[in-house]
Amino acid sequence: MKNYSHAALHAFTKETLQKIGCPERDAETAADVLLSADLRGVDSHGVARLSGYVRLWEVSRLNAKPIPQVVHETPSTAVVDGDGGLGLVVGPYAMQVAIEKANNVGTGWVSVRNSNHYGIAGYHAMQALPHDMIGISLTNASPLVSPTFSKERLLGTNPIAVAIPALHQDPFVLDMATTTAANGKLEILMRKGEQAPSGWVQDKDGKPSTNPYGVKEGGALLPLGGDRVHGSHKGYGLSAVVDIFSAVLSGANFGPWVPPFVAFLEPHPNPVGKGLGHFFGAMRIDAFRPADEFKGQMDTWIKRFREATPIDGQDRVLIPGDPERELETKRKKEGIPLLPAVVEDLKSLAQKLEIGWME
Amino acid sequence: MKNYSHAALHAFTKETLQKIGCPERDAETAADVLLSADLRGVDSHGVARLSGYVRLWEVSRLNAKPIPQVVHETPSTAVVDGDGGLGLVVGPYAMQVAIEKANNVGTGWVSVRNSNHYGIAGYHAMQALPHDMIGISLTNASPLVSPTFSKERLLGTNPIAVAIPALHQDPFVLDMATTTAANGKLEILMRKGEQAPSGWVQDKDGKPSTNPYGVKEGGALLPLGGDRVHGSHKGYGLSAVVDIFSAVLSGANFGPWVPPFVAFLEPHPNPVGKGLGHFFGAMRIDAFRPADEFKGQMDTWIKRFREATPIDGQDRVLIPGDPERELETKRKKEGIPLLPAVVEDLKSLAQKLEIGWME
Repeated sequence: MKNYSHAALHAFTKETLQKIGCPERDAETAADVLLSADLRGVDSHGVARLSGYVRLWEVSRLNAKPIPQVVHETPSTAVVDGDGGLGLVVGPYAMQVAIEKANNVGTGWVSVRNSNHYGIAGYHAMQALPHDMIGISLTNASPLVSPTFSKERLLGTNPIAVAIPALHQDPFVLDMATTTAANGKLEILMRKGEQAPSGWVQDKDGKPSTNPYGVKEGGALLPLGGDRVHGSHKGYGLSAVVDIFSAVLSGANFGPWVPPFVAFLEPHPNPVGKGLGHFFGAMRIDAFRPADEFKGQMDTWIKRFREATPIDGQDRVLIPGDPERELETKRKKEGIPLLPAVVEDLKSLAQKLEIGWME
Repeated sequence: MKNYSHAALHAFTKETLQKIGCPERDAETAADVLLSADLRGVDSHGVARLSGYVRLWEVSRLNAKPIPQVVHETPSTAVVDGDGGLGLVVGPYAMQVAIEKANNVGTGWVSVRNSNHYGIAGYHAMQALPHDMIGISLTNASPLVSPTFSKERLLGTNPIAVAIPALHQDPFVLDMATTTAANGKLEILMRKGEQAPSGWVQDKDGKPSTNPYGVKEGGALLPLGGDRVHGSHKGYGLSAVVDIFSAVLSGANFGPWVPPFVAFLEPHPNPVGKGLGHFFGAMRIDAFRPADEFKGQMDTWIKRFREATPIDGQDRVLIPGDPERELETKRKKEGIPLLPAVVEDLKSLAQKLEIGWME
């Protein structure tokens, strides 16, 4: 694997999006979001997806010049219609609406329809941090996950992200799929030729499987917990809440109706809503207690957990966000490693759109 | 096991709480909350806990005549001080504040300090349903759970409940501990003399265990996921969010500082806050879209998931809330089965407080 600088990949991403018609400012925002995934180690949601977005645009399932709009609101809530745009652009717009409402009345909650994949959930939640707010970000996604006891795939990996500021400590940033393992982890196993652990996958007949190709062959990812005895009904329940907040509240497609990310699969012929959905929240800390008081207590919380006695064979207890932040620091310095297949894909994209490649 | 009628147990609970000084209206509310756990099959959080609350009162760790108060607020948020009262009384008060704020500005969010255990999380979330609102209820609890990689117990079973109304279908009610399995499930295994499944418990050295006495012997319950490879860092992260929203936002004790429910264990000598904490949310459906439109789509959601093809050996795919509601219907008719040990405990309580027992 070769490393590429954040700046170079950012410029390439921005140029690509401008080539398909995105206004410069939107292309800049989208590149910020997409590249944050590569920096933070969620490689499946970064530049590796860029050509996927372009293909969606080619089949007219992506509006390169969206005008997202608030279509309904109260002092603390809004529904945003994303105008069929990139989630990478619509998401930051909607999160900004949530932050403004939190400024006015303490909290802001925005459900979004008619959008597309929005990159990593954590990016959007973290937008609240500089405002001394807690940020929340949820999205539904293409159906790859079976509820407990179901043979059918009805849910996406539907992530939950929560970002909470601290004083001297780094912020707490939870960013998790509601499945036992994300799809990207299966791709790593495929490349290595290894089996998947129990509880990650079921086969097309709904039987537990350790085949990393299980999902590709018609099976499904499993909700966090893996099976009933290990609590998969809880992972399923959380994923369902994400789906409902993101799509039933806004009027987007939900469950098995969520349009697939890949352009070669057709969307459902009878949609129940528009595009896919997200849900954002912002809570002003000082709507509850003075911000410095809260953040000081967060430092106490974080330090206590960080200093917990680790089990044998482990160095330390981690705080949500630690691994991603450490990787971000490293990759900002050393560059972002891209798989040869991803590089080839980006080079073809460069050729097709007549953009200079960086080497 | 003998069955007791809901009405009889409710009357007994109310009388008990009045005997220790609770005003009649508070005793009525508390009995409603406590008995809803027995009806819904969360037996560990129902009348089996009644004598535990009384013992907390005996050691002056419970205020029988609390005056809960809003101590800080914005149009969409509040912090409530529970005045050291029963969570069974403070919880409904705070949820009512959330509902009023949602009526005014679309949503209401209330963090609570200086409270005590509040029964089942689901009860409080469900208070929002008759108002055509989504209800959310979180609480922290005595530290019995180890974060991923930690030998120490730093978190409670910290539940998440979300209640969502539908039109003709029954409401969606998620009510889950953020552990693989709740402590009550271990008690069932102890009585049966059976081992625990993998991923539920670790021993006092932090090693995976199948000993149902593992927690009693100094080990810990494990976060949903069980171990790192099965996603326990996600269960840990969710539990941490519950702790922070419930206690760091309000000024209650958090993490290992949460006071134990059992009266024979002393609270931490250097508390970081007051009592334990809860967090409640209410979101008015029509702050997002017309309520009937939303509820109609919830019916579509629920029907589609209910009709999913089940895996071999299973009858059907369940919707969160189905098992509890079915049990509630049955127990309202047939009565609530109590273990002999629970009956003996309640009889002693009756004797001590000079209340008539029902048989």
